[in-house]
This record gives sequence, structure tokens and C-alpha cells, in this order.
Amino acid sequence: MGGTVPQEPLDDWLEQLGSSAPTPGGGAAAALAAAAGAALVEMVVNLTVGKSAYAEHEPHVQPIGEQARALRQRALDLVADDAAAFDRVMAAYGLPRQTDEEKTARTAAIQAAAADAARPPLQIAEVAARVIELSAALPGRSNRNVLSDVGVAASLAGSALESAAINVEVNLGALKDEGVRDGLRKELTAHLIARELGREVVSNVLQGVSS
Amino acid sequence: MGGTVPQEPLDDWLEQLGSSAPTPGGGAAAALAAAAGAALVEMVVNLTVGKSAYAEHEPHVQPIGEQARALRQRALDLVADDAAAFDRVMAAYGLPRQTDEEKTARTAAIQAAAADAARPPLQIAEVAARVIELSAALPGRSNRNVLSDVGVAASLAGSALESAAINVEVNLGALKDEGVRDGLRKELTAHLIARELGREVVSNVLQGVSS
Repeated sequence: MGGTVPQEPLDDWLEQLGSSAPTPGGGAAAALAAAAGAALVEMVVNLTVGKSAYAEHEPHVQPIGEQARALRQRALDLVADDAAAFDRVMAAYGLPRQTDEEKTARTAAIQAAAADAARPPLQIAEVAARVIELSAALPGRSNRNVLSDVGVAASLAGSALESAAINVEVNLGALKDEGVRDGLRKELTAHLIARELGREVVSNVLQGVSS
Repeated sequence: MGGTVPQEPLDDWLEQLGSSAPTPGGGAAAALAAAAGAALVEMVVNLTVGKSAYAEHEPHVQPIGEQARALRQRALDLVADDAAAFDRVMAAYGLPRQTDEEKTARTAAIQAAAADAARPPLQIAEVAARVIELSAALPGRSNRNVLSDVGVAASLAGSALESAAINVEVNLGALKDEGVRDGLRKELTAHLIARELGREVVSNVLQGVSS
């Protein structure tokens, strides 16, 4: 899997997602949702910048597009990172466990791999939280004709954040070191603050397009 | 755009999503989220069927995988349908409006195209609602090791449903015929019932993987 995934045809990638192959899985799907949310923020910016009706908002909107572009690329990189981290966890579980030395080494390897494997979903959560914040900065300044796309961006990024949180928790569940676990969970909690903001954007957009 | 979209490389497709090109847009992104949710349901089924620990649940779980597979394909088809319907709306707005006859014809064409354009997002909402229902039927019967993926499936399908609803509303906003509008909104409301179920699945999974 690894770094080649994002270049695959969309339908093939979804076929692999649906297969019994261990990667891509939910972590990769979360990253994809974050990437799609970031892309929609970019689209809205691209349909705002250069239009005379929104000229006064251009200094505000332009950097949002640039940040969204960087976040989209980062989300795609995390698809590969997530798969690689998962593969290392599986490899650790596969280590020999005949002797006491082997058992100790295997347990340590599993713990290290599980702590590392919580990283990519944590980073996906961070990217998703940033995409939500960018989407929240658009209404009132971006092209009104594509307000609906702002709402879809916030919704997808919200789901990416939620999905990433599920995947962080799975990896924390395997961790015995409370200190490491609490530290990682604290980081996750910080990213999860954006969840409510995402819900507000969706709700405001739904109201805006319905009226 | 049209039927060729799903065969494009994932990163190229996201690049197009982010561009100022009118399609793919939020409707296509909603369909992609529904397809990814369906694929994760399939994955969970593929990692459950054939395992002795879950043999008793196989008659229940197997058809869920088959339905999810069909829904994934349908979601991908709807990416193309949504783009085509959007193009017809744009074409209607581009009709000449010099004479009274032209104005009348243009208005009628816009109304017909807008009513048609509400169809694909309505169908995306329906697919997403079905994916949520399938995900809700898995916990307790599917492979416990991939419970997190059930949660991600429900979350993505929930976002697809929400996003599709935003896109239906946008199209309804352009409709002057109250009867047509109310009929379409009634259909949407029926699909939106699954939203709460999706939230429950996510919440239960999050609890299940954290404990």
C-alpha cells in the first residue's frame, strides 16, 4: 500500500477499501474525507477570488485557499502513514513468543507500535479540525452561489474528525502505559473542540440555502 | 466529467474537486463519502464471513455485504448523474432571454432542470440512509476487531446524508412550484430519519472501542 495509494483510480481504491485487506481501512477513509473537505474549501476560494463582488474579502479568503491546499496534501500523505503504522502493529503481533525474552520483546514492540499507530489518526484529527476552522471563516465573505459547498466541506471534515477519534481510541485501548495514553488522549480532546464548530457551520449553511 | 470520474486517480479527482470547475462539487463529494461508507461495511463483512467465531451470524451478515456492494456502485454512478444534472441547470440559465417567448422558455427550462437536479442528491441521501442502516445491523454480529470501521462507515454515511440534504435544499430553493418542492422535500425528510441512527452507531462504537 503506502505512498502509492492516492494515485490509484478512485473506484479501485474503494474496491480495496471494501476488501478484507487490512489497509486501507477506516483511518484512510477518514483522511480521504478530510482531503475532500479541504478540496471543497479550495473550490469555494477559487470561485471567490478574482470576482469583483468579493474583492474586499480577497485578502481574507486567499490565504484560506492556500492553507486548505496544504491540508489536502497532508491528508493524502496521512493515508500512507496510517497504513504503514498499522502494518508495524501487525508485524509486532507477529513476533515470536516462545521464550520469556521473546515474550518481553514482543510486548514492548506491540506497545511501541500501538503508541506510534495512534499518531496518524491524531494527525488526521488535527487536519480535519483545521479544515473545519477554515470552512467556518468563509460564510459572509465567500461566493454565495457556493455556500452549500462550504457546508459539505464542514460536514465531511466533521466526519473525518469523528472517524479519526474512533481510530485514535482503538490504538489507545492497546496501550498499557497510562501516561502515554493520557497524553495522546489530551491531544485528541484538543482537536475535538472543532467538532461543535463544524456542526454550527453545517446548520447555518442548511438554514442559509433553505431560506 | 460524467461517467469517467470514478476511474480517475484519487489525487487528480481531489485536485478537480478543489478547482473552480463547476463539477465535481459538493454533490459528488457527498456521493464519494457514501461510497466510502459502503466500502467499509463491505470490509467488515469480508472480515467476518468465513470466520468460525462468527459462523452463526453469517446468514445475517452476508447479505449486508452484498447490499453494501450494490450501494457503493450506485453512489459512484450518482457522482456522474449529479454532474450531468448540474450541467443541464447551467445550460438552462445560458438560454437566450431577448424576447418574451425566449424568457418564458428559459424560465420553464430552468424550473425543469432544477427539479431534475434535486434528484441525484435525493438519491445520494437515500443511498447514505441505507448505508447507515446496514452499519447499524453489524455491531454484535460482525468481527469485533473491526468495530471501529463500523463507526467510521456510519459517520461517513451520516455526513453523506447531511451533505446530500444541503444539495437538495439548494435545488429546491430555485423551484417556484410549491407542489413539486414539497413533494421532493417530503422524500428528503424520509431519508433524514436515518441521521439519528447514524449518530447512535458512532456513539456506541466510540464507547465500545474506548472501554
